[in-house]
Amino acid sequence: MATIVSPSHFSPVEDAENIKKACQGWGTDEKAIVSILGHRNLFQRKLIRQAYQEIYHEDLIHQLKSELSGDFERAICLWVMDPPERDAHLAKLALQGPIDYKVLVEISCMRSPEDLLATRRAYRCLYKRSLEEDLAARTTGEIRSLLVAMATAYKYDGKEIDEMLAMSEASILHDEIRGNAVDHEETISVLSTRSSAQLCAIFNHYKDTYGRSITRDLLRHPTNEYLSALRAAIRCIKNPNRYYAKVLRNAINTVGTDEYALTRVIVTRAEKDLKNISDLFFKRNNVSLRQAIEKETSGDYKDFLLALLGNDEIESSSSN
Amino acid sequence: MATIVSPSHFSPVEDAENIKKACQGWGTDEKAIVSILGHRNLFQRKLIRQAYQEIYHEDLIHQLKSELSGDFERAICLWVMDPPERDAHLAKLALQGPIDYKVLVEISCMRSPEDLLATRRAYRCLYKRSLEEDLAARTTGEIRSLLVAMATAYKYDGKEIDEMLAMSEASILHDEIRGNAVDHEETISVLSTRSSAQLCAIFNHYKDTYGRSITRDLLRHPTNEYLSALRAAIRCIKNPNRYYAKVLRNAINTVGTDEYALTRVIVTRAEKDLKNISDLFFKRNNVSLRQAIEKETSGDYKDFLLALLGNDEIESSSSN
Repeated sequence: MATIVSPSHFSPVEDAENIKKACQGWGTDEKAIVSILGHRNLFQRKLIRQAYQEIYHEDLIHQLKSELSGDFERAICLWVMDPPERDAHLAKLALQGPIDYKVLVEISCMRSPEDLLATRRAYRCLYKRSLEEDLAARTTGEIRSLLVAMATAYKYDGKEIDEMLAMSEASILHDEIRGNAVDHEETISVLSTRSSAQLCAIFNHYKDTYGRSITRDLLRHPTNEYLSALRAAIRCIKNPNRYYAKVLRNAINTVGTDEYALTRVIVTRAEKDLKNISDLFFKRNNVSLRQAIEKETSGDYKDFLLALLGNDEIESSSSN
Repeated sequence: MATIVSPSHFSPVEDAENIKKACQGWGTDEKAIVSILGHRNLFQRKLIRQAYQEIYHEDLIHQLKSELSGDFERAICLWVMDPPERDAHLAKLALQGPIDYKVLVEISCMRSPEDLLATRRAYRCLYKRSLEEDLAARTTGEIRSLLVAMATAYKYDGKEIDEMLAMSEASILHDEIRGNAVDHEETISVLSTRSSAQLCAIFNHYKDTYGRSITRDLLRHPTNEYLSALRAAIRCIKNPNRYYAKVLRNAINTVGTDEYALTRVIVTRAEKDLKNISDLFFKRNNVSLRQAIEKETSGDYKDFLLALLGNDEIESSSSN
C-alpha cells in the first residue's frame, strides 16, 4: 500500500507556476515546494514537469537542482524523476566510486520484469551504454556474474510452482553454499532465471530439508562482498518489505543517519508499499517510522519525507 | 534490402476469405495460398490474421497447420507469425531435443536490442517461462554462460567507438583464446555487453595486432561445441549478411538439403536484408540463390520460397 496523499483535482499549469514563484526572488520557498510536490502522485508529477518544460523551456529538475541543496535537493529530484529514469540514475550513482552493490541488487531484484526493462532502456538512453556493460566493466569474478545476471533477467512472473524442481534446486544451492564449491555457477543461474514464486519455494525447501535458512547459511562469511550481495538478493526476493524495513532501520541507526538510503527507500516505495514497510518497521523497532524520521532528520528534508509518509502514520503513531 | 513484393492496395477481409476458400472442399489450393501470403508484407499479414480470427473465430495458423504439411506448412506458418512470436517459436524448437546452438546464437546476435526484448516477451507469454530460464536449464558450463549472456543482452546500439578500450579488450580476448585460459569469462562478458560497433572495432584491432582474425583463431578446435557457438556469435556480429549467406550455402550443399535452415533464413530475412544476402550468395557461389533453390526444392514449398525472393532475383539471374 502506498502512503502519499494526492488531491483528485489539480492543475499542472498552476502547480508549475507556483513552483516557479517559489524559486524566484531572494531565497527559495521550500515549504511551498514540499506542499505541492509532496502531495502529487506519479502521473501528476509527470504532467507538472511537462507543463514546466512548456511554459519555462527548462527541465523542472534542473531548476530544482539549482535552487535547492543537500539531502532535500536529492530527495525532491529523485521524486520528480520518472521511476525508470530514477532507477537508472541510482544505478549509475551506485557504479561510480566504490560500488554500492546493495543498490544494484535492490534495483535488479525488487522491480517487476517490465520495470527492470524500462530501467535498462532509460539507462541506455541517458548514458549511451547499457547497464550490463557498465556493470561488467566495473566488477569482476562472481560478483560480476551475479550482478549482470540479475540485472539482465526478464523473469516469468506467474505463480506456478514446480515442487520437484524446487526440491532438487534447493539441494544444488545447498551443495554449493555449504559445500564450499569453487564457484556458485548453479546458484547464480537459478537465482537469476527462476521466477520469484519458484525461488520462494526453493528457499522453503532449503529450510525444511537442512534446518537452516539459506540466508543464515550465507552469514558464515559476513565480510565476503560477493556473499553479502548474494544474501541481499535472496532477502530481496524472499520478502521485499522486510528487506526495506531493515534498510530503513540500518539507515536510521547509523551514526549520523544514512540519509541517502533513507531517501532512496522512502522515495521509491512511497507510491508502492511504504505503508506495509512502515508497519513492519514499527513491529520490529517499537517506534513508528514517522517518529524515527522526525527524530533523526530536520528542516525541509524532514518535512518532505513526512509528506511522503502521508496521513496513515500520523493516525497510527498518535494512537500508539 | 527486402525482397518480397506486396501490393499497395489490398483487402484483409478478401484475403482471409480467399484463404478460407482455398482450404475448403476436397484438397487444398496451395497455389492460391502462395499467391496471397507470398505477396503480403508484415503489416498486411497481421491484418489478414486478425480478419481471419474475426470472421472464422480461428487462428489462421491453426487452419494452415491442419491443411498443409511438411516444409511448406512450416514455412507458411513461420511466415504468418509475428516476428517476436516466430523467434520465440524458433528458440523453443532449438531448445527441444539436441540443442541447436546456432539458431539460439542467431536470434541473440542478429536482432536489434528492441526486437530481442520483444522475443523474450513473446517467449514468456507463450511458454510461461523466461527464455533464459530454459536456456540455463538445458545447458551447462561455458556454453550456458555464453548463450544466457547473449540472450539477455540489451545493448547500446549507437555508433560511437572507444579505440583505446577496443585495443585493450582485443588483447584480453587474445589472451583468453590463444592462451588457452581456464575459462572465457572476459570474452563472454565483452561479447555480451559491448555494442556491435565497439565489438567490430575490437575484432579489427585483434586482426591488426595479431595478424589473424579472431574467427580464424577459434577454428583451432573445430569440434568443440562451445567454441563453435562462440565463433558463430562473432561471425553474426561481424557480418550478419555474410553469415546468413553461408548458412544458405551449407543448407543447399547438405546432402538432401537442410530445408529447416533454408526456410528459417528466407522467412526471417525476406523483409529485411535478403537482397543483400542473395547478392553475397551469388558472388561466392557463382549461382544465384533463386537458381539454387529452384534446383534443390520442389512443389509448393519451392513456389513459396521463390515468391519470398521476389522479382529482383529474376531480373538479376536472367541477366547473368
